[in-house]
Amino acid sequence: MMLRELKEIVFEANLDLVRHRLVLFTWGNVSGIDRERGLIVIKPSGVSYRELTADMLAVLDVQGNLVEGQLHPSSDTPTHLVLYHSFPEIAGVVHTHSTYATAWSQAQRDIPANGTTHADYFYQEIPCTRSMTSPEILGNYETETGNVIAECFRTRQINPVDVPGVLVANHGPFTWGDSVSRAVENAVVLEEVARIAFLSDSLNPVLPMNPLLVEKHFARKHGNNAYYGQ
Amino acid sequence: MMLRELKEIVFEANLDLVRHRLVLFTWGNVSGIDRERGLIVIKPSGVSYRELTADMLAVLDVQGNLVEGQLHPSSDTPTHLVLYHSFPEIAGVVHTHSTYATAWSQAQRDIPANGTTHADYFYQEIPCTRSMTSPEILGNYETETGNVIAECFRTRQINPVDVPGVLVANHGPFTWGDSVSRAVENAVVLEEVARIAFLSDSLNPVLPMNPLLVEKHFARKHGNNAYYGQ
Amino acid sequence: MMLRELKEIVFEANLDLVRHRLVLFTWGNVSGIDRERGLIVIKPSGVSYRELTADMLAVLDVQGNLVEGQLHPSSDTPTHLVLYHSFPEIAGVVHTHSTYATAWSQAQRDIPANGTTHADYFYQEIPCTRSMTSPEILGNYETETGNVIAECFRTRQINPVDVPGVLVANHGPFTWGDSVSRAVENAVVLEEVARIAFLSDSLNPVLPMNPLLVEKHFARKHGNNAYYGQ
Amino acid sequence: MMLRELKEIVFEANLDLVRHRLVLFTWGNVSGIDRERGLIVIKPSGVSYRELTADMLAVLDVQGNLVEGQLHPSSDTPTHLVLYHSFPEIAGVVHTHSTYATAWSQAQRDIPANGTTHADYFYQEIPCTRSMTSPEILGNYETETGNVIAECFRTRQINPVDVPGVLVANHGPFTWGDSVSRAVENAVVLEEVARIAFLSDSLNPVLPMNPLLVEKHFARKHGNNAYYGQ
Repeated sequence: MMLRELKEIVFEANLDLVRHRLVLFTWGNVSGIDRERGLIVIKPSGVSYRELTADMLAVLDVQGNLVEGQLHPSSDTPTHLVLYHSFPEIAGVVHTHSTYATAWSQAQRDIPANGTTHADYFYQEIPCTRSMTSPEILGNYETETGNVIAECFRTRQINPVDVPGVLVANHGPFTWGDSVSRAVENAVVLEEVARIAFLSDSLNPVLPMNPLLVEKHFARKHGNNAYYGQ
Repeated sequence: MMLRELKEIVFEANLDLVRHRLVLFTWGNVSGIDRERGLIVIKPSGVSYRELTADMLAVLDVQGNLVEGQLHPSSDTPTHLVLYHSFPEIAGVVHTHSTYATAWSQAQRDIPANGTTHADYFYQEIPCTRSMTSPEILGNYETETGNVIAECFRTRQINPVDVPGVLVANHGPFTWGDSVSRAVENAVVLEEVARIAFLSDSLNPVLPMNPLLVEKHFARKHGNNAYYGQ
Repeated sequence: MMLRELKEIVFEANLDLVRHRLVLFTWGNVSGIDRERGLIVIKPSGVSYRELTADMLAVLDVQGNLVEGQLHPSSDTPTHLVLYHSFPEIAGVVHTHSTYATAWSQAQRDIPANGTTHADYFYQEIPCTRSMTSPEILGNYETETGNVIAECFRTRQINPVDVPGVLVANHGPFTWGDSVSRAVENAVVLEEVARIAFLSDSLNPVLPMNPLLVEKHFARKHGNNAYYGQ
Repeated sequence: MMLRELKEIVFEANLDLVRHRLVLFTWGNVSGIDRERGLIVIKPSGVSYRELTADMLAVLDVQGNLVEGQLHPSSDTPTHLVLYHSFPEIAGVVHTHSTYATAWSQAQRDIPANGTTHADYFYQEIPCTRSMTSPEILGNYETETGNVIAECFRTRQINPVDVPGVLVANHGPFTWGDSVSRAVENAVVLEEVARIAFLSDSLNPVLPMNPLLVEKHFARKHGNNAYYGQ
């Protein structure tokens, strides 16, 4: 893939956040990685989606050094870098403050797997990270945000391929995927799943679901014998 | 009716799900049946509504064998087949993951008949099926989903003509009707009824309604002496 | 005013319900009265708003006899008639099943006067009628619906000029006004007031408000010394 | 800045309230101040946003005397005047009845600082004023509304630069900023923050957040060493 192509993909993915009504103003960012060349393309910080062009995107190496572009990369860039390092299978990362997912983050609650809509994309609950410590906040905050996400998946033994998203406590959601467009799709789905779960939690706080049903729906879409789609 | 015509009807009905904001991505499907010829037309699996054309629809016989079309039919096809078999009066079936109806499904609660909006379309509560057993999930899952719906109406002695929709536990709504467009209309109404019921349940968990008022509203629209409409 | 003009006003008012997203399908109707001529113009029953033209509206005398028009008037016409008889100051009536107002109706709760948004249009709580009795439902149901509204205002000594709307228990809202467009405006406001009240009731079930503040806001817009507007 | 320019800015800012869906009908108003010339530009009272032109705006001196314009200024003008007097750093003021912020106002609750979305714009909780007394309501009501806001910030020692908005009890939100467009942006953010907080409060009524995290997010955007944006 040419760098030009990755830029176009990341550019369109950033605009998709607006089309899917996941962002207000400049709240959100999408990045993509070319693992062969070791290059990451990400939205510049604080630039309005209306003014954004593909040429304004920042190109970084995997250590986060600016390789191409006139503008500062998103202030959340170090979090994206940690995710690319920690989760080698992923090719795109999305961060938003989408309403319902952010509400679950602020409530510091996992989104439970209570329905097939959830299970079609997420193999178990979508975890909420632990709160960050004061040293983490006062230190390299955005890097530590990534570290807390990685720690969450490691200590709870959750596979980031099977659960392509997380809630950062008191902050909001990050999602990822094996492509940039899949990472955006997961951001859209996470918001809708968070919304349905908010409603069902209100209608019935104790929501049982047969784990086999979660397994079934995830597997018919993502398993070795998947038969959903063409 | 020509098969061509049924395809156009089912095609437009699938797009109506998008227009009424009942579906995200490829989540949802509409089918229609020509009972004289024994043919069922249904959306292909995993195809985006933007790319969908009438020619892409799958045509099946009532046993589910592909008669016409290049694409796999919806993975939910066996559920549609069971509904056509079990409910001989119906001509169209709709499945969505619409937000509020899905929340009630996840909460595993019937939607109570608490208002005339509900009673104008549904003669009593909209039932939520029992949870599926592990053997049902591990077996012919989509067929068993249909069987659980049929069982629900049979054991609770609910007439599917009077209550043209159901909530599948932990999954979402199916609706039907004596025409494809009526099945879509019922999907739209079920979502709105689920939304109003969510709100009224929150305002007042104990919601009395005179059964005669349900009877009155259903009958003035659907009874022998109906006087609603022209 | 020419009958032609009243028809145009009622026609546009019916379409305003769609523009303000207060109705789905054919759920809702607007009427207007020419008290000098004793003529009422109302939407025909079950006609889609897309197909509606001003010529399709029904013209009735104040006893409800069809004077002009090819189509049956709205099935709710007898309710409108009772309101015009009982509230001589009003010139337009609107009925919808708007989501939040209908939820309060189903919850059988008055909407309390808890904010200036409410007080700018409604001088006190918006009442919910008592449930209708079985004989009322089995009798002239739509006329009795009007009677229950009139009884509610009479027995609770609420002035329909100061509180231009009501919730019919288990059904939904009716609003009115000194003009057809004012009746529509009140329907829009009632829905928004119901929505805000739903949220504030959830945040704080005990919501105090100084009655003088209600008085102040109502009076600065509608009182003898009103100074809101031009 | 020419007065012409300020009028254009205030005109566009008033229309932005509609674009961001913060107002219904004429509910809301934006003003801007030219502190050098001592002139305030504000929306006229009760004029629909569709009919509004820049020439219709009222121009006042800082005592509130009409300097230019044919129409009465917004009835909330005295509140704006008090805010400009009390908070010398601000250049624009916005008042709306946006749904979620109004619900918190009616519930008479502060919006707690529970997330980084909040902390990116508001340094601590967004306060709700005390209820107004009967003499305040019966006196110069709109001036007293401003006084209650100023008192709230003074007695609670909240810096209006760090918390550019308030909830007036039983009424709704006012926001401000160092420019007119910033005041509008803060109105949009306050509504979204109120919405997220409504949801998270429902999911978890006890919402802890490390104050250092609030500090961090506010400082990275607004502090001396801010690094958000270009």
